[in-house]
Amino acid sequence: MATLADIGVSAAFNIISALAFLVAFAILRLQPFNDRVYFPKWYLKGLRSSPTRDGAVLSKFVNLDYRSYLKFLNWMPDALRMPEAELIDHAGLDSAVYLRIYLLGLKIFVPITLLAFAILVPVNWTNDTLKKSDLNYSEIDKLSISNIPPGSQRFWTHLVMAYAFTLWTCYILYKEYGLIASMRFHFLASEHRRPDQFTVLVRNVPPDPDESVSELVEHFFLVNHPDHYLTHQVVHNANTLAKLVKKKKKMQNWLDFYQLKYSRNPSERPTTKTGFLGLWGARVDAMDFYTAEIDKTIEQVTAERERVTNDPKAIMPAAFVSFKTRWGAAVCAQTQQSRNPTLWLTAWASEPRDVYWPNLAIPFVSLTVRRLIIAVAFFFLTFFFMIPIAIVQSLANLEGIEKSAPFLRPIIEMHFIKGVIQGFLPGIALKLFLIFLPSILMLFSKIEGFTSLSALERRSASKFYIFQLVNVFLGSVIAGTAFQQLHSFIHQSANDIPKTIGVAIPMKATFFITYIMVDGWAGIAGEILRLKPLVIFHLKNFFLVKTEKDREEAMDPGSIGFNTGEPQIQLYFLLGLVYAVVTPILLPFVLVFFGLAYVVFRHQIINVYNPEYESGAAFWPDVHGRVLVGLVISQLLLMGLLSTKEKAQTTPVLLALPVLTIWFYYYCKNRFESAFTKYPLQEAMMKDTLERVREPNLNLKGYLQNAYIHPVFKGDDDDESVEVIDEWEKESLVPTKRQSRRNTPLPSKYSGSSSPSLPEVVHEKAQGV
Amino acid sequence: MATLADIGVSAAFNIISALAFLVAFAILRLQPFNDRVYFPKWYLKGLRSSPTRDGAVLSKFVNLDYRSYLKFLNWMPDALRMPEAELIDHAGLDSAVYLRIYLLGLKIFVPITLLAFAILVPVNWTNDTLKKSDLNYSEIDKLSISNIPPGSQRFWTHLVMAYAFTLWTCYILYKEYGLIASMRFHFLASEHRRPDQFTVLVRNVPPDPDESVSELVEHFFLVNHPDHYLTHQVVHNANTLAKLVKKKKKMQNWLDFYQLKYSRNPSERPTTKTGFLGLWGARVDAMDFYTAEIDKTIEQVTAERERVTNDPKAIMPAAFVSFKTRWGAAVCAQTQQSRNPTLWLTAWASEPRDVYWPNLAIPFVSLTVRRLIIAVAFFFLTFFFMIPIAIVQSLANLEGIEKSAPFLRPIIEMHFIKGVIQGFLPGIALKLFLIFLPSILMLFSKIEGFTSLSALERRSASKFYIFQLVNVFLGSVIAGTAFQQLHSFIHQSANDIPKTIGVAIPMKATFFITYIMVDGWAGIAGEILRLKPLVIFHLKNFFLVKTEKDREEAMDPGSIGFNTGEPQIQLYFLLGLVYAVVTPILLPFVLVFFGLAYVVFRHQIINVYNPEYESGAAFWPDVHGRVLVGLVISQLLLMGLLSTKEKAQTTPVLLALPVLTIWFYYYCKNRFESAFTKYPLQEAMMKDTLERVREPNLNLKGYLQNAYIHPVFKGDDDDESVEVIDEWEKESLVPTKRQSRRNTPLPSKYSGSSSPSLPEVVHEKAQGV
Repeated sequence: MATLADIGVSAAFNIISALAFLVAFAILRLQPFNDRVYFPKWYLKGLRSSPTRDGAVLSKFVNLDYRSYLKFLNWMPDALRMPEAELIDHAGLDSAVYLRIYLLGLKIFVPITLLAFAILVPVNWTNDTLKKSDLNYSEIDKLSISNIPPGSQRFWTHLVMAYAFTLWTCYILYKEYGLIASMRFHFLASEHRRPDQFTVLVRNVPPDPDESVSELVEHFFLVNHPDHYLTHQVVHNANTLAKLVKKKKKMQNWLDFYQLKYSRNPSERPTTKTGFLGLWGARVDAMDFYTAEIDKTIEQVTAERERVTNDPKAIMPAAFVSFKTRWGAAVCAQTQQSRNPTLWLTAWASEPRDVYWPNLAIPFVSLTVRRLIIAVAFFFLTFFFMIPIAIVQSLANLEGIEKSAPFLRPIIEMHFIKGVIQGFLPGIALKLFLIFLPSILMLFSKIEGFTSLSALERRSASKFYIFQLVNVFLGSVIAGTAFQQLHSFIHQSANDIPKTIGVAIPMKATFFITYIMVDGWAGIAGEILRLKPLVIFHLKNFFLVKTEKDREEAMDPGSIGFNTGEPQIQLYFLLGLVYAVVTPILLPFVLVFFGLAYVVFRHQIINVYNPEYESGAAFWPDVHGRVLVGLVISQLLLMGLLSTKEKAQTTPVLLALPVLTIWFYYYCKNRFESAFTKYPLQEAMMKDTLERVREPNLNLKGYLQNAYIHPVFKGDDDDESVEVIDEWEKESLVPTKRQSRRNTPLPSKYSGSSSPSLPEVVHEKAQGV
Repeated sequence: MATLADIGVSAAFNIISALAFLVAFAILRLQPFNDRVYFPKWYLKGLRSSPTRDGAVLSKFVNLDYRSYLKFLNWMPDALRMPEAELIDHAGLDSAVYLRIYLLGLKIFVPITLLAFAILVPVNWTNDTLKKSDLNYSEIDKLSISNIPPGSQRFWTHLVMAYAFTLWTCYILYKEYGLIASMRFHFLASEHRRPDQFTVLVRNVPPDPDESVSELVEHFFLVNHPDHYLTHQVVHNANTLAKLVKKKKKMQNWLDFYQLKYSRNPSERPTTKTGFLGLWGARVDAMDFYTAEIDKTIEQVTAERERVTNDPKAIMPAAFVSFKTRWGAAVCAQTQQSRNPTLWLTAWASEPRDVYWPNLAIPFVSLTVRRLIIAVAFFFLTFFFMIPIAIVQSLANLEGIEKSAPFLRPIIEMHFIKGVIQGFLPGIALKLFLIFLPSILMLFSKIEGFTSLSALERRSASKFYIFQLVNVFLGSVIAGTAFQQLHSFIHQSANDIPKTIGVAIPMKATFFITYIMVDGWAGIAGEILRLKPLVIFHLKNFFLVKTEKDREEAMDPGSIGFNTGEPQIQLYFLLGLVYAVVTPILLPFVLVFFGLAYVVFRHQIINVYNPEYESGAAFWPDVHGRVLVGLVISQLLLMGLLSTKEKAQTTPVLLALPVLTIWFYYYCKNRFESAFTKYPLQEAMMKDTLERVREPNLNLKGYLQNAYIHPVFKGDDDDESVEVIDEWEKESLVPTKRQSRRNTPLPSKYSGSSSPSLPEVVHEKAQGV
């Protein structure tokens, strides 16, 4: 068991590394040549331009103004200064509300910490149970519930505190849910016109031998929504095309690289090998090779584009249907269209840039099968990951290392090294495991068939949370003690699990304190340094960038990464809630995490991240629910722990807590959740009416006509995309073959040109989260 | 443990009593003076009139035609002869689909029984484990899984059978769900115009200082559904009025009773006492007393009616809003209206006769609190009922009786009596307990705030099912064995529960066989006799009936009683599925139940029951789900049982079964459930279009104007109700006080007279189910 001194060493180590990161960041960010790494958001907004254009050569790269180094922590107040309304305007509601999760942590835990230190710590400290026992204990344990003798009346304090903490947490959660729901409504109401406000995604259009998908969709909605239907866009299966375009881009990068190399050293034409990664195969002239390859790919792209546009088989049984009013779209999105609920499935269309195109064609039946397969796969993933973690942690145990590698003994016995190993290694081992996980989970979610990036990220976040709960939290608690007290542990029944974990909880406090410092302090400080984007930007800048536009593309602003970030925060909520009653000394460490992370991420959101989508804080119900899961877990574990302390009469008193908490969850769900999933007709009607008054002559059809075109058709070469659009228009004028329906009105021939702003190709990014 | 002979005695006893009931029924039904008890449905349909009007005096009461007695089982083929389409027309879809639950039982269990007897019975029989052991066993146990030695390879047969039975059950369930969904759609599509097709129930209308509820509702829907809103009716709080009307009716009954008494014996004027139930107080002339009381009550009724009609406080914050088209109503019912999801709650209005008026005014916040309270109360109810049942069952144990009352010994030791006690008593004790239960559960559901009788019955059925599962099924299995093997049972963990129950399951087969015979055979045969309605009808007929109309009212056709009937069937599904693999000898008993019950209830539905409402088989998702719950329980128990048979490797193979079954549940839910909760826009549009073509000049407003009036305003005196309606119309013409809204169109002044047929006062009946 780690002593107070070990914790001290670990704390010092982590504080120093965190400070080092911050100082490095403070210096690096002042260098003009890093400007695009640390302020990409402003470049993307067009409010900042390269500082390299003017001034002396040296000052292009290095900041020589010594005064700016003196105020190296200046970014902190800067980050905090922007008011929330401006932040929403600057970075979107998603980002602003994401920051509020950290604020929520502070709001919940600051009063809890104060109360715990005022009441629980003295109550725990003024005992000498541990001193009397022959157990090996540290100073930290003296502050914990372990120091209270079994059967003591003092446990009633913990019980009252458990009630107080639960009530406070629920109160804050309730206020916050209401606030964010109203922020969302305000955001939606004050937002500018967006195509997704008028558009519904229709999936599983049934096959029809007589009509094309486009005709079928048009007729169906003209019949069933006669007063509201405006226009629609079919979805083309452009996955192959997207791949080809991506390939072309890669080739272009290589060509640029070699051209730059040649221009820097014109004496020698660069060569490459044709095989895998240029490692083997025949040696050829690189520039000629890639020029030829690019030409070949362009040909393929043209052919494929031709095929996708003309082949009816390339049209998926899905469409984006737009309505004349928001009211019409709200009605269509919230109702069932056809007798068979697996056909003509309607749902709000996501923002155009939020659509995850490859999943639009998955049929309904395969969806449930996919969910089943992924559920089973996820189960196995979650429970087989436990084995390596347990092994690593048992190795990180000092005695374990000494036994398995006795020659290391002299080194390990050194006081400082001992502290580092005990304080650092278990946390870092766990962290390493988790790095590879998010991509797998995102892949799982993609297989499940969600059609928007935001939904994919939310789903992955749920998976990641469960994984962390089982492996990081429970895994660390049980596996750790399992290797310590192996015998008593096997063959225990499900009934005793809260008891067993509850008992182990106080013993693992030091481990989790270390974990918080490594992951929460140093890790967050490392986040602001952006080491990986820094290196990659400079590599790209050196090897690939020729024009200002290339430099623009070399920037990788990244985004918050909800699917990994939020579950990480939830782990801190869980730790805070579980240890609030048991070992309150852990709370300040959690508080530091929330405070530091709030400042860091506020800075990043203002200066760096460029959100891939705007979901209007649709993730909040998940956040709320998971904090409550943490709360219920903490209550169950406390029940388990107290039932072993010869204080069995506390169990029924505590039993009311999870019941009330779960009820509170359902109450909030009824009260607020619909704000995040539905669009009230009153709101829609209000916005419609306002718009009709303000812009009576709006050409909505022109605005919506091409809003939902696969991003690959909107690539860099705009001529081609316009061409395709023209072809589509022609196609939509082909009269129906079915005689009886000839009299349904055809869409207006006029197609406006005011297409909404072109979204970036977004799903590349999503693949690699 | 009961021997085969005991079962024989019990079977004989139950078969004889069942036959006795059937013969009694066959004789009683032929007597003309019982005609209204056994054929009320036809009277209500106006297709049959009292046979007492013509013929000789004696033949008015007794059927003298001896030939009709010879074919006393004739009702059975008669009951089966009516085709299903005619049955739906005659009794409604609810009844027809309810019968299909019994058919479902036959479809599932006939093939399972055949397969089990062809394969499992021989496999079990050809062992001699029980003979070798020193256990006390009966012949029935030799046919069960208990007869197979631990670790035998023969268990693989049971495993394969478990898979076969699961697949077959799911297949049948899937087919049936699809069939019933399409029956429902067909029913809704072919149905005549009904007010509920156009109407939406709006609850939680927010209070407004400037406008009355009626004005507010009108303005809200004129603004937010401008093209579809037609009219609305506010809901009056007429609960006091309903009570007064009921009181008046009761007084009238007493008056009738005394008038009849006086007319039969004119020499003496009847007297009564004024106190409670006429048992004490001053003696007065009965007819004068009740005439005065009735006059007093009529005054109160008039005053209350006045108050309800004019007092704005008597108007509840709820309204029935009608739309011009089914499409408009479908849209409004399925969407969220206001930003706050707890205001302007919309849902499909139930049929007028299905509305449960007292619950219409419950505010949203109190709803979740009520649910919580009822959930806790239901938990305690469920788990405290176990204690008396366990005591009674332990007394019904022969040894228990002999010990507690040794003087009974000589009687008990008689062979016949012994069989009766062992075969009959445990079942009857359980049955007695259950008689008082449904009213409590219905009360619980009412407190939870459901607004329609059908929803109340469905909810009560869910509660009753859980209750039966815990107390009848698990309670019998565990408590019974708990009193037998007390020591080994206390202090077992949650993990071992399936194991413990699984092991006890084969031992309880004889108990459940007896239970099936008592409850399922004799009970069902007793149902057809209608003893209670028979007695009550003749009492009323003798004491109260003066006119033909009174006689009409004295009939009590009753209804199926979904809230008790369906959970009872589910118990048989559960028993059948659990014992199919373990003790297949139980299956024929279940089959007889399903067959007999099908014929009996088909007869009752055709000739007797008068449904209180028509929900269009909205209960099927519950039925489907509960059969699957039974299936999962059977799989878990089989896992538990096999894990004790030294055949641990079967557990992982069996584990896939519950996973697949639960997945199947979700698949079906996605695929079919919306057919029972939503109304697709395509269907609505189709029916609207048809109607517009067929009846272009329909005065829909007149049709809907008074459809949703509290039944108390539609009582026996039609003049008054018309008066009230007139007043309401006037009231709805009062112009709004709010200036800015003066320009919203007012409803047309014309009110048609073609109000839909007057529904009966239904909620009296519901109170007493």
